[in-house]
Amino acid sequence: MKDGAGVLWVDGELVPAGEARVDPRDRGYALGDGLFETMRAREGRLPWLECHLARLRGGAVVIGLSAIPDDGVLAGAIYETLEANGLSEAVVRLTVSRGVPARRSLLPEPGPTPTLVIGVQPFVGYPPSLYDRGMRAITSRIPRNERSPLARIKALSYLENVLARREADAGGADEALLLNTAGRLACASAANLFLALDGALLTPDPGSGVLPGTVRELVLAELAPRMGLTVAERAVRPEELAAAEEAFLTSALLGIMPLTGVNGFPVGTGEPGPVSSGLSVELEKAWSGRLERGKGVP
Amino acid sequence: MKDGAGVLWVDGELVPAGEARVDPRDRGYALGDGLFETMRAREGRLPWLECHLARLRGGAVVIGLSAIPDDGVLAGAIYETLEANGLSEAVVRLTVSRGVPARRSLLPEPGPTPTLVIGVQPFVGYPPSLYDRGMRAITSRIPRNERSPLARIKALSYLENVLARREADAGGADEALLLNTAGRLACASAANLFLALDGALLTPDPGSGVLPGTVRELVLAELAPRMGLTVAERAVRPEELAAAEEAFLTSALLGIMPLTGVNGFPVGTGEPGPVSSGLSVELEKAWSGRLERGKGVP
Repeated sequence: MKDGAGVLWVDGELVPAGEARVDPRDRGYALGDGLFETMRAREGRLPWLECHLARLRGGAVVIGLSAIPDDGVLAGAIYETLEANGLSEAVVRLTVSRGVPARRSLLPEPGPTPTLVIGVQPFVGYPPSLYDRGMRAITSRIPRNERSPLARIKALSYLENVLARREADAGGADEALLLNTAGRLACASAANLFLALDGALLTPDPGSGVLPGTVRELVLAELAPRMGLTVAERAVRPEELAAAEEAFLTSALLGIMPLTGVNGFPVGTGEPGPVSSGLSVELEKAWSGRLERGKGVP
Repeated sequence: MKDGAGVLWVDGELVPAGEARVDPRDRGYALGDGLFETMRAREGRLPWLECHLARLRGGAVVIGLSAIPDDGVLAGAIYETLEANGLSEAVVRLTVSRGVPARRSLLPEPGPTPTLVIGVQPFVGYPPSLYDRGMRAITSRIPRNERSPLARIKALSYLENVLARREADAGGADEALLLNTAGRLACASAANLFLALDGALLTPDPGSGVLPGTVRELVLAELAPRMGLTVAERAVRPEELAAAEEAFLTSALLGIMPLTGVNGFPVGTGEPGPVSSGLSVELEKAWSGRLERGKGVP
């Protein structure tokens, strides 16, 4: 059985996954013309849903996608899909594509109705043993174009990230680190990158070609300050990773994942360190705190 | 009525367009993970089909997409779709996507069955008046990443091209020229670029971040030699376009399209010139010659 068999939400209707349909002429399928968000539901709740939807709307402005339903409608649809699938621990994928044009053209027409798809799968997560040893990465040969608007939005045109991940897999690694065209560190194929260096945190700045990850933003705004850590956002040279005491990756699905090796060399001691474990604890507290404040409730 | 309403070929079956279905979990829709070709049928024939399919297979190697049906099957499906739609003057779009994975992951699984879609629309073409005045382009602010494998294949992750075309439209232009990250000319949003300079032809080389367009390759191999023109493939500086006697764009749908203005300035005289019109004549001859040699016949 396919993972995620069950029920998908497509343009306002719940449909059995095997029958769900996107029109092949949809610009999302034909041209990668759309956006997505991948989120984690825990105990049936998405306390950071508003962050994901804010990012989605930011991307919609960049690519000129209009008429996305408001947050209440999207939240309702997500919780409805979780319920219909009987899932409370889930990966939630929201896709918004530009829809079916009246005429074939590279140029989008003004104001077509976007297609919306919500799919949920059981959240399996990564094995605790992986957090215990940390991920090992290779550096991808594909440079990330930090001057492209796509570097800062979560667009359906995601094949470069797929190819970087293939490279990692072919090299026996868990992840691929992407350098931008200036040779500075940007991110991993599907995660943001942080270094602990000289007792402070360091992460590539948006200008380096970085998606504003939800956990990245949380580390900056909440988690690092609570640990008394300062964070610098700036261009990061690969040599700084070699000199770092620790490094870790962040994403909505990974949370805080230690990065303990790159290109066969250890990062820091080669073991997960106290900064990433401290931030993981803070992330858990932040999650509980959000729920106590009534966030992420259906 | 939607353009292209009619019948689509989806995984071996002809389906009315409004009922045709791609699974929303298909990696083509979810991640822009796939390839496409856009071709022109004239008098029901596609004399350069083998060039398109060769390029498709080249792209499949780059992204690791296997199990694409052989050329005979694809050709048969294309001619069948044309016939089912009663079209002989058509734009044919072939899409191959990585299909529905058994598990959600950025990393593709080995050997899933790709999804194949063929759609045809009446070929309207561009008005003769546009060929008479030539296209006017702006230079896009989005640099093309010449070091990405996606720069040289026709991938479904095509949103950057869409955004460049939007920029052109917003600037009142017909097309957008893309500079690569080194500031050299690469191509237009959906066409290759040629300059006539000092009595010879000049076109950005593959290393500049150029898709090997079917008409581009034909100009290099057949049309220019027949006119006694030499062609240099190399990095091209924007200043060379300003100094060119003529410029033109090539694609399977455009053929040879004069480029007569860039960023509000005329290219050459600002009028279509003898090189592009001569090459258009040669392209027509090449088309007839192919048909006489039995190419492109169902």
